[in-house]
Amino acid sequence: MPTMTAAQKRAQAKAEYDAFLANCPSRQLLDRISDKWVALVLAALGSDCPHPDGAGEPRSMRYSELSRQLAGVSQKMLTQTLRSLERDGLLTRTVTPTVPVTVTYELTNLGLSLHGLMRGLKVWAETNMDDILTNREKYDTTGGAT
Amino acid sequence: MPTMTAAQKRAQAKAEYDAFLANCPSRQLLDRISDKWVALVLAALGSDCPHPDGAGEPRSMRYSELSRQLAGVSQKMLTQTLRSLERDGLLTRTVTPTVPVTVTYELTNLGLSLHGLMRGLKVWAETNMDDILTNREKYDTTGGAT
Repeated sequence: MPTMTAAQKRAQAKAEYDAFLANCPSRQLLDRISDKWVALVLAALGSDCPHPDGAGEPRSMRYSELSRQLAGVSQKMLTQTLRSLERDGLLTRTVTPTVPVTVTYELTNLGLSLHGLMRGLKVWAETNMDDILTNREKYDTTGGAT
Repeated sequence: MPTMTAAQKRAQAKAEYDAFLANCPSRQLLDRISDKWVALVLAALGSDCPHPDGAGEPRSMRYSELSRQLAGVSQKMLTQTLRSLERDGLLTRTVTPTVPVTVTYELTNLGLSLHGLMRGLKVWAETNMDDILTNREKYDTTGGAT
């Protein structure tokens, strides 16, 4: 049997998992990654935040740094999000035995591959915000869904 | 004053809106678009669904077709999602006065620009599902967050 090319393998994976199907595990995964906190954690660890050090490079961040970067996130939500991303293998959690211990988070290669996509969502939201505010105003004044 | 280049305009838009900030409207927009139903509606209307007609082309779909494509979606959730996407100017809703009336949905150019990104999320979830299931198993057997 001939070896499959990368494209064929991707096509097969797509055929096996289909997020349009209610019971496909990829539907649940899509739900998990479709989350603003996931988008913001990945953006921060992928170093898209306005920070002096090299943008575009993955970087390791402490819990407290992430918490500050993601303004308004609750401790419960941030902890849950980080644990779920660690469980899925998108980031690593490293505990250094200082006093007190230092806990840092860093994207894995799998996390970096998702980061590229999620970064686009954040930039898209920021870039098209003006147009969308205009559209909403128009919709609301013309009566919208009639 | 010299005219801004497209890149400068994008940089300015990014500076004006910052989803890392709790009160920035783009944070709320990122929350709105980070949604599995949004991802699946855009994927369906962008014709990524397994359907005979030309994949990659935007297409107009009836409510009932969308409802069938997005297996398991409730009528309430689908209606809310479509209305919100229409209000944001990502899709158009066309009512044709047949008996009974025909209501169709189609992506706008703005919707198509987001479709490209969201499509990537669905494909990413389907492509990496196996790796992620393996990672979860490993995390759960080694005790995970210690």
